[in-house]
Amino acid sequence: MKIERLTKDLSLKRSVDSGTEDQRKAVQDIINDVRKNGDAAVSQYTEKFDGVQVKELLVSEAELEAAVATLPDQQLAIIQEAADNIRMFHEKQTRNSWMTTDETGTMLGQKITPLDAVGVYVPGGTAAYPSSVLMNIMPAKVAGVKRIVMVSPPGKDGSLSAPVLAAAKIAGVTEIYKVGGAQAIAALAYGTETIAKVDKIVGPGNIYVALAKREVFGDVAIDMIAGPSEIAVLADETAIAAEVAADLLSQAEHDARACSVLITTSPELAEEVASEVEKQLALLPRRDIAAASIADYGRIVVCDSLAEAIDAVNELAPEHLEIITRDAMEVMAQIRHAGAIFIGRFSSEPVGDYFAGPNHVLPTNGTARFSSPLNVDDFQKKSSIIMYSETAFRQNAEKIAAFARMEGLEAHARAIEARKK
Amino acid sequence: MKIERLTKDLSLKRSVDSGTEDQRKAVQDIINDVRKNGDAAVSQYTEKFDGVQVKELLVSEAELEAAVATLPDQQLAIIQEAADNIRMFHEKQTRNSWMTTDETGTMLGQKITPLDAVGVYVPGGTAAYPSSVLMNIMPAKVAGVKRIVMVSPPGKDGSLSAPVLAAAKIAGVTEIYKVGGAQAIAALAYGTETIAKVDKIVGPGNIYVALAKREVFGDVAIDMIAGPSEIAVLADETAIAAEVAADLLSQAEHDARACSVLITTSPELAEEVASEVEKQLALLPRRDIAAASIADYGRIVVCDSLAEAIDAVNELAPEHLEIITRDAMEVMAQIRHAGAIFIGRFSSEPVGDYFAGPNHVLPTNGTARFSSPLNVDDFQKKSSIIMYSETAFRQNAEKIAAFARMEGLEAHARAIEARKK
Repeated sequence: MKIERLTKDLSLKRSVDSGTEDQRKAVQDIINDVRKNGDAAVSQYTEKFDGVQVKELLVSEAELEAAVATLPDQQLAIIQEAADNIRMFHEKQTRNSWMTTDETGTMLGQKITPLDAVGVYVPGGTAAYPSSVLMNIMPAKVAGVKRIVMVSPPGKDGSLSAPVLAAAKIAGVTEIYKVGGAQAIAALAYGTETIAKVDKIVGPGNIYVALAKREVFGDVAIDMIAGPSEIAVLADETAIAAEVAADLLSQAEHDARACSVLITTSPELAEEVASEVEKQLALLPRRDIAAASIADYGRIVVCDSLAEAIDAVNELAPEHLEIITRDAMEVMAQIRHAGAIFIGRFSSEPVGDYFAGPNHVLPTNGTARFSSPLNVDDFQKKSSIIMYSETAFRQNAEKIAAFARMEGLEAHARAIEARKK
Repeated sequence: MKIERLTKDLSLKRSVDSGTEDQRKAVQDIINDVRKNGDAAVSQYTEKFDGVQVKELLVSEAELEAAVATLPDQQLAIIQEAADNIRMFHEKQTRNSWMTTDETGTMLGQKITPLDAVGVYVPGGTAAYPSSVLMNIMPAKVAGVKRIVMVSPPGKDGSLSAPVLAAAKIAGVTEIYKVGGAQAIAALAYGTETIAKVDKIVGPGNIYVALAKREVFGDVAIDMIAGPSEIAVLADETAIAAEVAADLLSQAEHDARACSVLITTSPELAEEVASEVEKQLALLPRRDIAAASIADYGRIVVCDSLAEAIDAVNELAPEHLEIITRDAMEVMAQIRHAGAIFIGRFSSEPVGDYFAGPNHVLPTNGTARFSSPLNVDDFQKKSSIIMYSETAFRQNAEKIAAFARMEGLEAHARAIEARKK
């Protein structure tokens, strides 16, 4: 890894893949077809893209039990413990409806209601991650969503991954369908004979899934379109180079476009991490991916002061931030933009990816400036409550009518005055 | 207004104007030009579309004071009182960062941070509403946003509307620029020499503004693209027909595509409201707009029971809902989907449009199923905090590494094991 001094143009931003014109057209056609022909279109695309005829879209309870039974007890126990930790953390995010009253008897408030139905997309193949299933389903469950529908493309044998099914069951999924790609997104957004439509679709997917989510956005809600993963490690001379290097590489193994950045006040640490990365990289099973990521998007940046390093982090707004410095809590207090902040040497990023409880679905590509980790709020909505008392009404009617007339909206003023009689 | 029995296909949904290919191309060109040429492009489009040469984009303090001074004191006092009510309601929405600790010393939490900078678009001409300025700026202010930038297209004389400027000042705007249309959205999203870029853009606008917001979405956050306004009135025989009719018309006067629906258990009320609407409509200054809206999107629906009526409302998910029935609070408890719920005859919708305090920026077109009124959360974001203790780490390291290996992510497992030494 190259070591550089901090300059002004430090940025993690990579262009977002917005698909080709052909890909967009293909996705629109699939969506229109599924809207029109329902299950028949879904089956046809599944055969075409996944190479399998699926008789029953719905995964039966027996099928689910059988898949779960193939997993070693120890794996199930780990998934269960992770799920418990995730549940506990997300339960802290829940909020109550509230109502205020005043001396005139007026009541104002905010009613919180879970969404009725949510769809969770889970990619197939090698990118099928049970941790991602937990992280997407459990906030919806904690939010009180009654119907949580998982969709995932079937393998050539028509089945779904056993760890993914186990995680879905543990997380509390209510329905699972064997369908992937743009056809799955269309089915969730508009419904078919078998799959009733949902109100929001979350979860990662390939470019076709991402384009389909963009297309249906507005008819249903969607989560953010995630970019490649990122980590920034903010470290001083107290950090241990081998640990920092291992954390940078854990990010790099995800994706050739993943981004790993060390920002440090210590030129010595910079040198040591650079050499540790080379050493550890050579021994990784996914070294091709990690090496490409480190070569293209890996950076080691040396700063003159901690203050300068903190500014650099806020400028980056990284998805993951590790702070391995003296007084790391005080440093954290100065971070304004980051998806998740890992503090101290024992908070290695994988602790949060799998186990600690906070969500691993995080804002990428600098969007931590204005976005949040996936959370319970994403699965609830608010309604304002206004119960104006007669006293409050009579006190304020003239002012309200005057405001309406200031805006030239006479019918608004008359609606108020209709009550004055 | 036609009176009908409840049937299954009750829907407020109107197709969303997604613009023509030409409009989209025009907007893309403007955005690219502003990104490249900054202020020069902004000035050029302002001259072209608004027909005025603006020397200073920034509204000066003197200009602001002068505009405010033209308003009668009484109007200023009403705007101020509305602003105070809005502030008080939105202050109830604020949340604190939180942190939990456990017996091992692990700390997990959620840090809440306001956005750094927000842009508020305010339309020009006759659609310039001071209430909308308050409703868009004040939640950002309460959220703690330091930089709140208003943009609005100048009139032919190069000035902005005095009530709009007054509302912006009262709400606590920090900068105001005389620029509108797609060029304003581009300037907010990417910055120019004069206008520093923001993190989120909110506020209503015409089709060019809406398309520009869609284009820049992802580089900055945006609010929902609003459709035409809607009201559903859920009423039994205790409601007063003249009041219900006035409320339906107050919605109808907004826009020929606005939608006003009465859902009632009382055939008598249905008849009376229908005739009251005709009577009152004839006397309205904006009767052309209101008549078109009532003719195309006005409905009176009679239900056999209150339960059926409540189901119909949940199916509609209206932007505004008035409940004028016996035991209206109990009815409210059964409403799952509505932007704002007005309870009882003194809670006429304009009470909430202007004065009560809850936000009048609400989800339209059935999106109340999954969206919320504009609120303080829209101007803050969360960061997860993970400080894993050494004890917790050593207790769980093996499980975390095993989970990583279950997903085939060896570098994740090694990042954990690097700390076990």
